[in-house]
Amino acid sequence: MAENSPAQKLSHLQDAYLRIRNETSCLAEGLTDADATAQSMPDASPSKWHLAHTSWFFETFVLVPHIRNYTLFNPDYNFLFNSYYEAVGARHPRPSRGLLTRPSLDDIKAYRNHVDEAVMAISGEAVSSQISTLLELGLHHEQQHQELFLTDILHLFAQNPLKPAYRNPVPLEVIREDGPPDIVWHQFAGGVVETGDRGDAFAFDCERPRHEALLRPFALAGRAVTNGEWLTFMQDGGYATASLWLADGWDAARNSNWSAPLYWHDADGQWQQMTLRGLQPVDLNAPVAHISYYEADAFATWFGARLPTEHEWEHASHSVESDGNFADSERYRPRPQTRQGLAGMFGDVWEWTQSPFTPYPGFRVSGGAVGEYNGKFMSGQMVLRGGSCVTPQGHVRPTYRNFFHPDKRWQFSGLRLAKDC
Amino acid sequence: MAENSPAQKLSHLQDAYLRIRNETSCLAEGLTDADATAQSMPDASPSKWHLAHTSWFFETFVLVPHIRNYTLFNPDYNFLFNSYYEAVGARHPRPSRGLLTRPSLDDIKAYRNHVDEAVMAISGEAVSSQISTLLELGLHHEQQHQELFLTDILHLFAQNPLKPAYRNPVPLEVIREDGPPDIVWHQFAGGVVETGDRGDAFAFDCERPRHEALLRPFALAGRAVTNGEWLTFMQDGGYATASLWLADGWDAARNSNWSAPLYWHDADGQWQQMTLRGLQPVDLNAPVAHISYYEADAFATWFGARLPTEHEWEHASHSVESDGNFADSERYRPRPQTRQGLAGMFGDVWEWTQSPFTPYPGFRVSGGAVGEYNGKFMSGQMVLRGGSCVTPQGHVRPTYRNFFHPDKRWQFSGLRLAKDC
Amino acid sequence: MAENSPAQKLSHLQDAYLRIRNETSCLAEGLTDADATAQSMPDASPSKWHLAHTSWFFETFVLVPHIRNYTLFNPDYNFLFNSYYEAVGARHPRPSRGLLTRPSLDDIKAYRNHVDEAVMAISGEAVSSQISTLLELGLHHEQQHQELFLTDILHLFAQNPLKPAYRNPVPLEVIREDGPPDIVWHQFAGGVVETGDRGDAFAFDCERPRHEALLRPFALAGRAVTNGEWLTFMQDGGYATASLWLADGWDAARNSNWSAPLYWHDADGQWQQMTLRGLQPVDLNAPVAHISYYEADAFATWFGARLPTEHEWEHASHSVESDGNFADSERYRPRPQTRQGLAGMFGDVWEWTQSPFTPYPGFRVSGGAVGEYNGKFMSGQMVLRGGSCVTPQGHVRPTYRNFFHPDKRWQFSGLRLAKDC
Amino acid sequence: MAENSPAQKLSHLQDAYLRIRNETSCLAEGLTDADATAQSMPDASPSKWHLAHTSWFFETFVLVPHIRNYTLFNPDYNFLFNSYYEAVGARHPRPSRGLLTRPSLDDIKAYRNHVDEAVMAISGEAVSSQISTLLELGLHHEQQHQELFLTDILHLFAQNPLKPAYRNPVPLEVIREDGPPDIVWHQFAGGVVETGDRGDAFAFDCERPRHEALLRPFALAGRAVTNGEWLTFMQDGGYATASLWLADGWDAARNSNWSAPLYWHDADGQWQQMTLRGLQPVDLNAPVAHISYYEADAFATWFGARLPTEHEWEHASHSVESDGNFADSERYRPRPQTRQGLAGMFGDVWEWTQSPFTPYPGFRVSGGAVGEYNGKFMSGQMVLRGGSCVTPQGHVRPTYRNFFHPDKRWQFSGLRLAKDC
Repeated sequence: MAENSPAQKLSHLQDAYLRIRNETSCLAEGLTDADATAQSMPDASPSKWHLAHTSWFFETFVLVPHIRNYTLFNPDYNFLFNSYYEAVGARHPRPSRGLLTRPSLDDIKAYRNHVDEAVMAISGEAVSSQISTLLELGLHHEQQHQELFLTDILHLFAQNPLKPAYRNPVPLEVIREDGPPDIVWHQFAGGVVETGDRGDAFAFDCERPRHEALLRPFALAGRAVTNGEWLTFMQDGGYATASLWLADGWDAARNSNWSAPLYWHDADGQWQQMTLRGLQPVDLNAPVAHISYYEADAFATWFGARLPTEHEWEHASHSVESDGNFADSERYRPRPQTRQGLAGMFGDVWEWTQSPFTPYPGFRVSGGAVGEYNGKFMSGQMVLRGGSCVTPQGHVRPTYRNFFHPDKRWQFSGLRLAKDC
Repeated sequence: MAENSPAQKLSHLQDAYLRIRNETSCLAEGLTDADATAQSMPDASPSKWHLAHTSWFFETFVLVPHIRNYTLFNPDYNFLFNSYYEAVGARHPRPSRGLLTRPSLDDIKAYRNHVDEAVMAISGEAVSSQISTLLELGLHHEQQHQELFLTDILHLFAQNPLKPAYRNPVPLEVIREDGPPDIVWHQFAGGVVETGDRGDAFAFDCERPRHEALLRPFALAGRAVTNGEWLTFMQDGGYATASLWLADGWDAARNSNWSAPLYWHDADGQWQQMTLRGLQPVDLNAPVAHISYYEADAFATWFGARLPTEHEWEHASHSVESDGNFADSERYRPRPQTRQGLAGMFGDVWEWTQSPFTPYPGFRVSGGAVGEYNGKFMSGQMVLRGGSCVTPQGHVRPTYRNFFHPDKRWQFSGLRLAKDC
Repeated sequence: MAENSPAQKLSHLQDAYLRIRNETSCLAEGLTDADATAQSMPDASPSKWHLAHTSWFFETFVLVPHIRNYTLFNPDYNFLFNSYYEAVGARHPRPSRGLLTRPSLDDIKAYRNHVDEAVMAISGEAVSSQISTLLELGLHHEQQHQELFLTDILHLFAQNPLKPAYRNPVPLEVIREDGPPDIVWHQFAGGVVETGDRGDAFAFDCERPRHEALLRPFALAGRAVTNGEWLTFMQDGGYATASLWLADGWDAARNSNWSAPLYWHDADGQWQQMTLRGLQPVDLNAPVAHISYYEADAFATWFGARLPTEHEWEHASHSVESDGNFADSERYRPRPQTRQGLAGMFGDVWEWTQSPFTPYPGFRVSGGAVGEYNGKFMSGQMVLRGGSCVTPQGHVRPTYRNFFHPDKRWQFSGLRLAKDC
Repeated sequence: MAENSPAQKLSHLQDAYLRIRNETSCLAEGLTDADATAQSMPDASPSKWHLAHTSWFFETFVLVPHIRNYTLFNPDYNFLFNSYYEAVGARHPRPSRGLLTRPSLDDIKAYRNHVDEAVMAISGEAVSSQISTLLELGLHHEQQHQELFLTDILHLFAQNPLKPAYRNPVPLEVIREDGPPDIVWHQFAGGVVETGDRGDAFAFDCERPRHEALLRPFALAGRAVTNGEWLTFMQDGGYATASLWLADGWDAARNSNWSAPLYWHDADGQWQQMTLRGLQPVDLNAPVAHISYYEADAFATWFGARLPTEHEWEHASHSVESDGNFADSERYRPRPQTRQGLAGMFGDVWEWTQSPFTPYPGFRVSGGAVGEYNGKFMSGQMVLRGGSCVTPQGHVRPTYRNFFHPDKRWQFSGLRLAKDC
């Protein structure tokens, strides 16, 4: 967004604001107050909490410090809807979010409106570039929560024996006759390459600073691993062969009784999968999703390949289009790949890399509470790249770094293989 | 209910059915779908679950086996709303009840109507005495869940930092000028007494068989211990003096950091208490509630007295009126005792006895799934007597045995002292 | 022990002291320092700890308060070897007892000698009856720990894949040809009976006061339930039939995967049992041991009988001899019953009763730290009667009340059936 | 070891074998059987286990597969003393190692002799280079366990209220008058550098393959952070300031109540520290030890610096001597640094780097069970470099990669600061 003036930039941001905030609200359509309140595990948050917390972000970082005479919607909300910003004060404990039956979903909608009106009323004259920066950050933050909204509601509904659909349009026609193309390896020469954000548009702090990385020659698979290939791994004893697994992974798999991806159910010999459309047959041609890093790594070892590093992935991704199967299609399931060539790097499933989420050389935490954004999470988590079928269109980019602990499975996480040349 | 004919008995029961079922439904007025869905701890159940489970009881034990052509409202509900009846099949795990955002509160209301219509349509001609017996049991079961409905919603709202009131009529006028009468000891001679249900009206299986018990001379306090007396115990170091406590109680108090009754908050030196009316000042003249058996026992030791046995309590209770402060007054808080004499044995607070909940001599479990009613809980729990301010009027009687594990605090449980003569 | 003078009483006690203390020391023969140090679970204690704690008892309650110029063996030992006496000060946490590799077994033996010399040096002239009372209590306490010494070392060795024997004399000849006599029911008329300690010899505080109890007519089985009968229960699905079990028992059995008594191993279709003599075949004719109260209750329900109350057991036990298979025989395993009539009530296995361990009417805790003896454990535990094959000869008596939580299995606990007449 | 012939190489290895195996045995001198048996936490192992497991390694990987007619010392030992080699069969569960009171310490010494005799009897004629490779690996493995032997016995003794010394020679004279030199920053230019093992001597699999790494200009502190500097961090509220901490670190610090390094005790205002020499004053001039990665990272943030990457550390270490304060001095405590210049990189304390322990580009797991050596641990752990005061002399080298989870504190782990230029 290379704007001419602060006021123009603000005006553009307000347009984006309206659109993105409205998208979030649309996600809640069809959910009951109860659906929006329950919390299915400590990692997940209630829908209502996502709706409120994103508003709290704008209120706390944009409105309160920068807008004179702004009136808090409700002073208690700072305690209730702070997520992890230690600098902003005490917080409601994360695992107890599902007990907040009040405020109601309607209260939260009113809270959203209150914040939205105040943000839209910000006048171009008085606006500082700091406000624009924070607004932009808030919108990208909002989009992150749009994705979590969907993954968390899926997890909640998956716990319900009734297996309700989040949205249930006509069933997808699944092309089963011809599978996806064979895996083809795309070679890259390596060398010293530039990686990380260029600085010409928004990026999160962890994507910076842009720096050089040294790559060895490598090859990347043309598409992601499919459910059908995963089933072969399972049938070959993949989940029962210790030598394929990292030690921590083997322990996690044993302790949690993993024998298939999350949400798979063996229904009398036929594999079903809980989806946002309810319980549906596993699509063997589509990319596998809902696997942990540990499982991805074991699969790659079994296959005789490895996961790419995040720098390899980013380098390769510059050669492909960044379109793909994102949330905006409301498909909400990964799509079988039909294109030849290096394809599907964006959308469908987040691809686990072998890179731990660590600071880029020269990384500095920003000042203030917003500085807690990503830096404090830089231990124990692994980088994923590319976005998924529940990521908002336009949210990801080649330099985008997502990250989760290696045992997490409730995101739309899959894998693409790499190997040395 | 000494009825002349089965049909008359049925008709009377149907009248009672309408009234009691309607009372349950009224309890849910003012609750949102979310309020009715959340589960604040494994011991508690969602309101929606209480509404559904009591209906499931009638459906499973009355309608399905006895009413030809009865159509199940929803075949999945047997799995969802079975509580602990192993004989009736698999169950949704108790700690996950709060994740059942579907079926909705409206669905459950429709379920209740469906069951109610079927019960009301039972024709007097064809009716067996077995149906009447089960209907009567179902209504007493329904009343038990009315009380749990209230204690569980209080526990849920107490977890919410907003401290919402369940119902908030005008504040109670609290008489503070003159406290309750001093503790006066009422003497009983002891000897061999009859105890347990006489058999002339409904009673639960655990109240039978009537049998002889041998009592030694004892004295019972004229009223329950008050919040003011409890505060004295606290100020005297009661929670920090190991010698007052049972070993398991001392461990529980240490592990859970007990230093006051459940729901008490120290608000800058003034004690507040979460109630069904929201956060309110502790009424020092009212009976103490929300204490565990361990605390009750420690208090009695500190006082130089003891808790009564359940047989002592029952024997003494025959000499008093069974009226009192029950749920029907919608006070929902224990009331300061103003009467002289042996008073307040019924209503206000359940009174912990020193008697473990064990079978009466000659106790036999009934046949069939209903036989799982009380017998299987006869280990590790302590008997409480007399009902509370959230017990439905008419539900308790002198022989009524309530029981909870000795560390439980979320019921309206208090104590009345006893001593040897 | 109706002695003529305090000095004579002391002298007799010192004789008993030497004998009993020596018996304890003999138990440790053959154990390594490591054997004596390890702790296999929080419920169990290291052998070394038993050896030290019993000495600490004499030091703390007899020597320090009553013997002028007594020199502590080591001031740190009060912290290390206090068990649960809150009044005596801070304690080393129970689950960490196995980390006390120092002091060594030899140090503890020296501690025992130090204490023994001081006790034996107490002069008859100066002695108070209080010292005699405490010495006598200390010896009965010592005998309790002799039994725990054996049950705890069995539990430790059972965790070792090598299944070492504690003592391994020639194998017991097991009479397998003719089983035990059939179960014969012995009738008792009931009525008001006296129960509890008469006061003419030593008894623990919990056996007092003697009082009246009201018994209904009952029958007691002539012998304990055997391993063979238990195997029939197992083969009939006893461990998989919820309706036989108390609710807490069913949960315990599921959570801990109980499918046989503790220490039973299925060795290719033949049942083996870890014993103090190492791994040996299960003796089908011998009384079953190492079962919890929950299992005993489920068996009785399956059989169509019940467990006796402790008063029934005590009343019946007055009609039998109190000899039996105790630790002194060094058999260390229950023995098949061969006698006709009401037999085997003492020794072989502790017999679970249906009575919770509660205070007798009029029970008072003694003053001082010794007053913590039994009273504080009077919740949540069940009474067992009669002693076992690892109880010291002469330690139990008809009024003796042992008690454990209902899920405990590592004691030599079995059952004898009862029923109503 | 560039040997002329396999037989010569074997002979040299056998000399080294005798020496190193003897060093291990010497470590056990002065320990009792009990000391050698206890396990103070799941992360630590009993001394006896270290003594046995290292022997098992030679038996399993050298003797059994390669030496005809080798007789197992005891067939049960494969089950007891396998550590984590899934390919070699079932294992005794790690947290239960402390319950193996049998075999005794003497049994284990006999086991060691049995294995040693067999290894020393290997004849040069018949020897394959594979045997030499495995012997060499076994000796480096043995040295790793020498260090763990010491850190684990320290942890055990630290749990004992008596705070026994492992070895207690005359107290160290502590130079307190003049502290260590100020921190001086040593600059490095960066660029593409070679890193990892050159292949001219023994190295673990994880040190290979040698490869290029791209470094940015950086500076490294001339010495490690001292206890005195750590105390300043503590006094400045370091443990109470969330903004200094990684999120997982903050949680770990809160959950475990960290407020000082492990083994520090505040003795009436003076800091004491449990050491292998017993409880001793904290030496403010010596390098801080027993801190987790999380603490190291928080300290660096507080200081305004960062931890070095493992490649930076390795690159810088080539410019310094590899002598230092190792286990052979039997000092067993970090030593205050007195040298100017870049000093103390080897010995004293392992230095946390900011690098997760991941495979080097092109890393391949070796075949067979030995292949489980390091690769399976390449997730969730952080690299430490340089060895400590309990590392055997000659064991570490510039390319050596040690690794632990970021919350571990019982190793002699400290830190050296780095910063960007």
